[in-house]
Amino acid sequence: MNQAQTQARLVEDAFKDMLSADDFKSAFRNHPAGVSVVTADPGDGPVGLTATSVISVSANPPLLVFSLSAFSSAAPALARAETVVVHLLGVEQLEVAKVFATSGIDRFADRSSWSRLPTGEPILAHTPTWLRGRVVNRMSAGDSTVMAVQVLQAQVPGPDITSEPLVYHNRTWHSLSPQSARN
Amino acid sequence: MNQAQTQARLVEDAFKDMLSADDFKSAFRNHPAGVSVVTADPGDGPVGLTATSVISVSANPPLLVFSLSAFSSAAPALARAETVVVHLLGVEQLEVAKVFATSGIDRFADRSSWSRLPTGEPILAHTPTWLRGRVVNRMSAGDSTVMAVQVLQAQVPGPDITSEPLVYHNRTWHSLSPQSARN
Repeated sequence: MNQAQTQARLVEDAFKDMLSADDFKSAFRNHPAGVSVVTADPGDGPVGLTATSVISVSANPPLLVFSLSAFSSAAPALARAETVVVHLLGVEQLEVAKVFATSGIDRFADRSSWSRLPTGEPILAHTPTWLRGRVVNRMSAGDSTVMAVQVLQAQVPGPDITSEPLVYHNRTWHSLSPQSARN
Repeated sequence: MNQAQTQARLVEDAFKDMLSADDFKSAFRNHPAGVSVVTADPGDGPVGLTATSVISVSANPPLLVFSLSAFSSAAPALARAETVVVHLLGVEQLEVAKVFATSGIDRFADRSSWSRLPTGEPILAHTPTWLRGRVVNRMSAGDSTVMAVQVLQAQVPGPDITSEPLVYHNRTWHSLSPQSARN
């Protein structure tokens, strides 16, 4: 091989090591996730979005992480927020999940669907579980920002209240129930 | 109030702002998640664990994040790894999920259940979707380490192959199917 051919081969090999964005998305389409709505008010009005990236990372201190895509209209305001509320949605909140995943609408237009915590953050009505916390770390990751949140307060349903959670998988919403259990 | 009482009140108020580890765990028990097994071989043998914290954070470049609890026996070796393989499990891999969540056993004892990629990482047989990547960032977060991985290769099932994914929720394994779909 001459030098140009060698160079071309090197570039070709390098690209073989790059997974395409489409293949990456296809892989994760097969990965189910619980559905959350993250809200905040960084000072200029309520913002919120539907997220399928909320994970628990530490119990002591209580820390969660979620990812904000640069392609979400609410991401810049949420990335600025000092505190956020993470709502873990039940299946009866499917319409809420859809509203907070829709672009170009006022997601807070229905004034009966939300109120404010004493600390100011928007809180969605009829949410079985929510957590309020302070953003303690931000990590830039490609076209997203990974937010680490230390949880300060939470509403946790009692052990006798069993809410079926909402799950997202392969562009479809699902519920879990005793019928979906496996052992 | 005297000074001691004032001090006691301040401490009490500060603790009101601390969510207990138990309440935090109760909240996330209500949050379903897809089930993965993360494997690696940092140089002294194969290691792996079952994780419910794998999220996609960026498609361009392709980046995923997962959390390693300090309480998992495999965590120190995985945290040292330069490359890892993330297996997104199907419901037919329930036993694999259980093996890699069990302490005190040799999780790689069944030699027919895994092999190695040409690059050396352990790869589990019969996994519909897996992604191999390089660890590009580590973030300490309480009693865990958040790992950011740039994906280099992936096996993605074709559009005609529909594998039912495995989901974990409230200490129970679930599957998704057309019957669990909601609209």
